[in-house]
Amino acid sequence: MAQTVYDVTTWTGASVSPYADIGKVMNEIIADIKATQTSQTTRPGAVIYIPPGHFDLKTRVVIDISYLQIKGSGHGFLSEAIRDESDSSQWVETLPGGSHIRVMNTDGHSEAFLIARSGSPASVGRLNSVEFRDFCIDGVESSKPYIPGNGKTGILAQTDNDAFRIEGMGFVYLTHAIILRGADAPYITNNFIAECGSCIELLGASQVVRVTNNFLISAWAGSAVFAENAEGLLISGNSILWYGSVRLVNSKRCSVTANKFVSSWQGLVILEPGSEENLISGNQFLRTDTESSIDNGKDDYFGMVHLNGSNNTVSANHFSYRVATQFIRPAGAVPTIVLVKGGTRNYLASNNIVSNIPARIVLDASTTETKIIYSAESSQLQAFSSNYSMVATP
Amino acid sequence: MAQTVYDVTTWTGASVSPYADIGKVMNEIIADIKATQTSQTTRPGAVIYIPPGHFDLKTRVVIDISYLQIKGSGHGFLSEAIRDESDSSQWVETLPGGSHIRVMNTDGHSEAFLIARSGSPASVGRLNSVEFRDFCIDGVESSKPYIPGNGKTGILAQTDNDAFRIEGMGFVYLTHAIILRGADAPYITNNFIAECGSCIELLGASQVVRVTNNFLISAWAGSAVFAENAEGLLISGNSILWYGSVRLVNSKRCSVTANKFVSSWQGLVILEPGSEENLISGNQFLRTDTESSIDNGKDDYFGMVHLNGSNNTVSANHFSYRVATQFIRPAGAVPTIVLVKGGTRNYLASNNIVSNIPARIVLDASTTETKIIYSAESSQLQAFSSNYSMVATP
Amino acid sequence: MAQTVYDVTTWTGASVSPYADIGKVMNEIIADIKATQTSQTTRPGAVIYIPPGHFDLKTRVVIDISYLQIKGSGHGFLSEAIRDESDSSQWVETLPGGSHIRVMNTDGHSEAFLIARSGSPASVGRLNSVEFRDFCIDGVESSKPYIPGNGKTGILAQTDNDAFRIEGMGFVYLTHAIILRGADAPYITNNFIAECGSCIELLGASQVVRVTNNFLISAWAGSAVFAENAEGLLISGNSILWYGSVRLVNSKRCSVTANKFVSSWQGLVILEPGSEENLISGNQFLRTDTESSIDNGKDDYFGMVHLNGSNNTVSANHFSYRVATQFIRPAGAVPTIVLVKGGTRNYLASNNIVSNIPARIVLDASTTETKIIYSAESSQLQAFSSNYSMVATP
Repeated sequence: MAQTVYDVTTWTGASVSPYADIGKVMNEIIADIKATQTSQTTRPGAVIYIPPGHFDLKTRVVIDISYLQIKGSGHGFLSEAIRDESDSSQWVETLPGGSHIRVMNTDGHSEAFLIARSGSPASVGRLNSVEFRDFCIDGVESSKPYIPGNGKTGILAQTDNDAFRIEGMGFVYLTHAIILRGADAPYITNNFIAECGSCIELLGASQVVRVTNNFLISAWAGSAVFAENAEGLLISGNSILWYGSVRLVNSKRCSVTANKFVSSWQGLVILEPGSEENLISGNQFLRTDTESSIDNGKDDYFGMVHLNGSNNTVSANHFSYRVATQFIRPAGAVPTIVLVKGGTRNYLASNNIVSNIPARIVLDASTTETKIIYSAESSQLQAFSSNYSMVATP
Repeated sequence: MAQTVYDVTTWTGASVSPYADIGKVMNEIIADIKATQTSQTTRPGAVIYIPPGHFDLKTRVVIDISYLQIKGSGHGFLSEAIRDESDSSQWVETLPGGSHIRVMNTDGHSEAFLIARSGSPASVGRLNSVEFRDFCIDGVESSKPYIPGNGKTGILAQTDNDAFRIEGMGFVYLTHAIILRGADAPYITNNFIAECGSCIELLGASQVVRVTNNFLISAWAGSAVFAENAEGLLISGNSILWYGSVRLVNSKRCSVTANKFVSSWQGLVILEPGSEENLISGNQFLRTDTESSIDNGKDDYFGMVHLNGSNNTVSANHFSYRVATQFIRPAGAVPTIVLVKGGTRNYLASNNIVSNIPARIVLDASTTETKIIYSAESSQLQAFSSNYSMVATP
Repeated sequence: MAQTVYDVTTWTGASVSPYADIGKVMNEIIADIKATQTSQTTRPGAVIYIPPGHFDLKTRVVIDISYLQIKGSGHGFLSEAIRDESDSSQWVETLPGGSHIRVMNTDGHSEAFLIARSGSPASVGRLNSVEFRDFCIDGVESSKPYIPGNGKTGILAQTDNDAFRIEGMGFVYLTHAIILRGADAPYITNNFIAECGSCIELLGASQVVRVTNNFLISAWAGSAVFAENAEGLLISGNSILWYGSVRLVNSKRCSVTANKFVSSWQGLVILEPGSEENLISGNQFLRTDTESSIDNGKDDYFGMVHLNGSNNTVSANHFSYRVATQFIRPAGAVPTIVLVKGGTRNYLASNNIVSNIPARIVLDASTTETKIIYSAESSQLQAFSSNYSMVATP
């Protein structure tokens, strides 16, 4: 085996069993890599392989080298919430599996993986192409909505980073599955993130992040994707469930396309102030009521899509609103499908609304020059502003 | 090597050569896993690795454990149909390759892989996160349209399942490439499924299945994707060919977006009764005549897209109809691009039709409140119902 | 280890260290595979594994067998341009990494990998299912715009090929990252191609190529994707940057959907003569001016999208034009968002234009029957032809 390939179960340099503390073993492997790769031009990184198994993590892994790939052989998702809700005494297995890490820090930290390297200027510290592939990070126990929950974080990138890959992973029972700060051009793709408070949080500022082809399943307190100050984020081809919510703050020229959304609460896409020139197109949005007995503070006036920014485009989407009367909040409300809360020149075209009760597109009084083209019937518009144009669906 | 990593070619517990019967070897490995992993909390599963090679499968593999990953090093597709149609005597290789399994059951079964575990209630048996990655399942010989063909099935999941992954696989010459019954949240992505009767069949009922980024190539008798009672299926970013046909029965809130379709027959998307609130958007549809000398029972009145359900959305698609006159059935027919066969409030907007001969959108007499907005010129509509609205493309 | 699994660092048949010339070692491995696999039905191919490390390539690898998978453990991208532009004396690492190949041919060739097999007819030579996965091909040094640059090519497929996979790779500092000639049904997915002259070039003719989920980052001289005579190419879900340019010549029924584009120059999508029935839908297009001080010959009249062909569809896109006045060329120009340069019956619907200065859709005099529906305000159209229809955005 090449010197740059480590298997946590067979590496002889570990001071502890990987089953007892895989975090400590990984830190020792990273120390070994750093001891071996010692100059600017001799640091290709390494791969750490996690075979299938149940591994406890007692010590946070600190990654301060580029090009580290941590790879398993299975995302190992099992619905822990279903286990909690059912009698599992007869089940064959009750834990997630595959290459399965149980986050059980005893080191005073709350993250399984911290990625950080300081430097001045930041480019000196910037980490490149760290990869997480095909294993499972399990917060072990929690209860809905997982925020504040157990407070655990799966992966936290704390300093500037470029070209990371998080692919094929499983995440379950974490307050935060993935937090990236200062991300430039990462792939977050093909992951199964479920029963977490928030799935993906992009903090600081980010550039052209890709969130594609994931299952993103969060409960009613957090977000499937949260981004602040993002530029050019692409959220495409995901299945975003249960509180299927994408929330963008001061984020520009992002794209939310070809996704399947399901949510028991309003706010499937939320654009907060400063969010401009974003495209929301080709999505199937379903607002259902499976868990709507729980109030998360967003009533039916909030909008399935909530726009509070200018120059955004909403085109070619399908909206299904299917909520039983008793779950509508406040009682008797006419639910809002799209709320244009603020901003100018938002553009809605070729959207179709299907609802089991009368439903509306609503323009707040402050909004100007909204265009609503073949996206609602005349009776479906409630405009508190007179500064808009509408071409009604016949 | 960790105890949970098996290589079919080096595992010493096998009673037979994996080249002679890889199925029997895999069953023996599964038995070994079960003998080793014996309690509810000690069943992380394992990975079975298939290196490149030609492996015969004489015995069906029965998977009744969660978290099993079967992984190869190559999807190994070779066009077997081309081989049949050409003189291959001078070819360098005449078989598919990579990690190549030849399905040659002598055990009286017709599946290569059966995934099933019984339990009462079903949650007791439910299997999680079984994975198939990067190998080739080859039905060895067959002839078009592969139904009934050799009757062979690549992967059959017979009981409730969650979070499966079928990724990067090759499938060829199978009557059924993949059948999943009772699927919850599987990934079927990045596969090369070709020269099969049907590519993907979702039976029973399914939840939020993902069919993304695949090549799905079936002949004229089956479907690229068939689903019954599906909720929230996402079919996105696929290349769906030759009889590029997605057929949904009683399926709701599904999404068919950003795909490339090519078909020599009508019925590229078929929504059968009970199929509602589905979105068909951003697809490039081509109806060609490469193989149109064969009649598969769907004449040109059937529609490239055939809608028989309510509240569906068809937006922002491009339709190309390029069929030579002699292949139009019945002779002299004006072909139907979209047939609204039944249902109410189907919504078509911003679609573009290109055709080498006059072509039409047709509304059957039973349909009501169809909206046709900038999707056809006036002369391109044939309405047997008067209960519709049209805004004609100028 | 199975006989079909090679690790370049441990294979004992090599005449040279893989660190000194990985190309020569791979050629020797390929010769070994050919010596071992000697009949039409015993050629499943093999996998060549490249662990993390810095490997020099002095000799071009010639692949003339099917089913070869070359696989690494990390795409290892590092921005080399940033390195050139910054003081990197304090950086921890200054080279790309992961499974990192430095293209340094001393054999008189300019490609790292040449894939070719002759035969008559071509089907005799046709290669199947060659795969490149998860490693880095680095041209070592170059300077923008990388054309002509160092003249190096990462992967060149010179003869007919079927079902290739190029996935998860990193490419940097190459004049041409990937060139495929005569491609049938390849996957080019999940790659990080950056700081290259051209990213993907599809020459000759191609069938149903898939370019999905990639980062495609080229400079101002080349293309992110160039195709000639393509049929059914699908370009979906990519992030296409800086000179984010897709250029199609005589290409038909292709699809450019759900991508995120950023470019400092005009011509984000260019359809040249013979390009027909293509779909451009659900894309977020940004024209910015980060590098617009450089003139690449395309002035602001060229169009962000430039259509010179018939029967194309542009639907449900968002266009953002954000260029400071001093960068507009020629000075004082009203920039063109979509130029319909030639052709008949091009169809634009439900597109939204956002611009910091007045901007236009322009129809050249030769164009006929263009439809412009809710894609521009009346004042935003400049028609040199009178043969068009417009429904203006209110």
